[in-house]
Amino acid sequence: MSVAGVGEFGLIDRVTARLGAGPACLVGPGDDAAVVAAPDSRVVASTDVLVEGRHFRRDWGGAVDLGHRAAAANLADIAAMGATPTALLVALCLPPGLEPGWAEQLADGLAAEAAKVGASVVGGDMSASPTLTVAVTALGDLGGRAPVLRSGARPGDVLALAGRVGYAAAGCTVLSRGFRTPKLLVEAYRRPEVPYPAGPHAARLGATAMIDVSDGLLADLGHVARASGVGIDVHRDAFEVPRQMRDAAQALGVDPYTWLLAGGDDHALAATFPPAVALPAPWRPIGVVTEGGVVTEGGGAAGGGVTVDGERYDGPAGWDHFR
Amino acid sequence: MSVAGVGEFGLIDRVTARLGAGPACLVGPGDDAAVVAAPDSRVVASTDVLVEGRHFRRDWGGAVDLGHRAAAANLADIAAMGATPTALLVALCLPPGLEPGWAEQLADGLAAEAAKVGASVVGGDMSASPTLTVAVTALGDLGGRAPVLRSGARPGDVLALAGRVGYAAAGCTVLSRGFRTPKLLVEAYRRPEVPYPAGPHAARLGATAMIDVSDGLLADLGHVARASGVGIDVHRDAFEVPRQMRDAAQALGVDPYTWLLAGGDDHALAATFPPAVALPAPWRPIGVVTEGGVVTEGGGAAGGGVTVDGERYDGPAGWDHFR
Repeated sequence: MSVAGVGEFGLIDRVTARLGAGPACLVGPGDDAAVVAAPDSRVVASTDVLVEGRHFRRDWGGAVDLGHRAAAANLADIAAMGATPTALLVALCLPPGLEPGWAEQLADGLAAEAAKVGASVVGGDMSASPTLTVAVTALGDLGGRAPVLRSGARPGDVLALAGRVGYAAAGCTVLSRGFRTPKLLVEAYRRPEVPYPAGPHAARLGATAMIDVSDGLLADLGHVARASGVGIDVHRDAFEVPRQMRDAAQALGVDPYTWLLAGGDDHALAATFPPAVALPAPWRPIGVVTEGGVVTEGGGAAGGGVTVDGERYDGPAGWDHFR
Repeated sequence: MSVAGVGEFGLIDRVTARLGAGPACLVGPGDDAAVVAAPDSRVVASTDVLVEGRHFRRDWGGAVDLGHRAAAANLADIAAMGATPTALLVALCLPPGLEPGWAEQLADGLAAEAAKVGASVVGGDMSASPTLTVAVTALGDLGGRAPVLRSGARPGDVLALAGRVGYAAAGCTVLSRGFRTPKLLVEAYRRPEVPYPAGPHAARLGATAMIDVSDGLLADLGHVARASGVGIDVHRDAFEVPRQMRDAAQALGVDPYTWLLAGGDDHALAATFPPAVALPAPWRPIGVVTEGGVVTEGGGAAGGGVTVDGERYDGPAGWDHFR
């Protein structure tokens, strides 16, 4: 049986039967649109798309994993504004010969990841397509707080990180070389562990800027530096290379700092705080905001005044989804 | 120059430069997420995806047209809940060899259609993909009204329609046969004329159920009939076949009622009203809600007790995006 055999409406019925409704879901799947609570009178919204062969491979992880990943990428964007996620909408483009069970498992993963933060899948759309594609939109609520933008970092602020970096990139490299272990790294790629509550927490602590680390730490800090008109210096000493990562790096002939500084997909949160703020876990300092103005030659994605221990970083900085 | 040559961030800059900000846009493109006003403390949200070769062909209309169509399909879903659209988010999957100008024109069309209702494109995502795909999420505000669902139709209610049906389907047939005229029909396919204000208007008038006609009138009324547990009888006499449609139908050997009753893509709104409600334009009566219980053999998309002049309709009823 294929998704084409089940048909659009049959598949929608099968998938929506697996979705629970979170507390913010006022009208769920099955109508022209969903209705979601927005108690703050503002709604935070972000869209991310995953394309097979570019963002994921079906032989590198299961459909449930992909559901977790697709949801996490979007929920992390909501957290990075200082908001709490409330809902997901999902546009699914499926090859007509795909097993319906694959879509059902994807829905399970999406729903389970959303449930971690009290959110749920409230709507979506499906179509056949030659290219398996998952486009997710996440909504969230600011709970009365100002959104934490990329543009508020000020010289003298402390740069801090919540969550892991490098794990997913290491896992991706491991998988791309045909290995399936170490499990810690491979699982980090398949199902990122996002520190969602750290986003609203940072907002309450007075974070001046925040971003979800999805393209790579230096590349994403470059976005903050450019938006804020500052420089950002990352302290390499702040990063310990975990044992499994060090071993994998050695076995594969990779500099582990390439994973730590330039690997995306873990969806850590990076934020800047006024220096007087005491930073409780999971936030840990990893650098400082400077006056900036360091222009890198070539103007790569790590440009905009991001340095490592005061110097330009020469490794790959991040990921461009067209190159 | 191709989108791959411009790169992800270059293309995002080019596209976002063309997008205005509507009154509900509090934080627009360029951060992890957008922030949109939701004065009602609830947000209406809907996602639709258009896939090249299935929902559109690049030789049947330009990128600006496609932007209008993609926006209209989503904005109509918001209107069909009785809400006013506030914002769009757009996930774009583009073949790497595509001209960047194509994406810019698409953005122009999206922005122009959104501007018709005071909304704007507030965010999105882009990726390369072998299959050109446009996934749009629309948000809207209920303005204190209850959402109008598909499930509220009651026997005795009047079935009414706002907007055109059959025009886009006729235009699609004309294009599929290799013709480019009549302009009226071809343009209706390329840029649907959606009666957006009729949605909130119907809610204020006391509509008991409402739906956006996107799959075909009978198929979409089937959704209302099933959700409401009623029958719906459509009066064929309520539909006049416009001259250009009659001429095209004759020339192409098509029954024009196939377009009128089973053609989607015009995004008319169909709603049911208590019989005492006086229906001002653009709403016009086209049928009645009955006790229902008419089960059609085969259980096609037009099942669920939808009849035409009291009888089962034997033509094609609508569109399944996997078949």
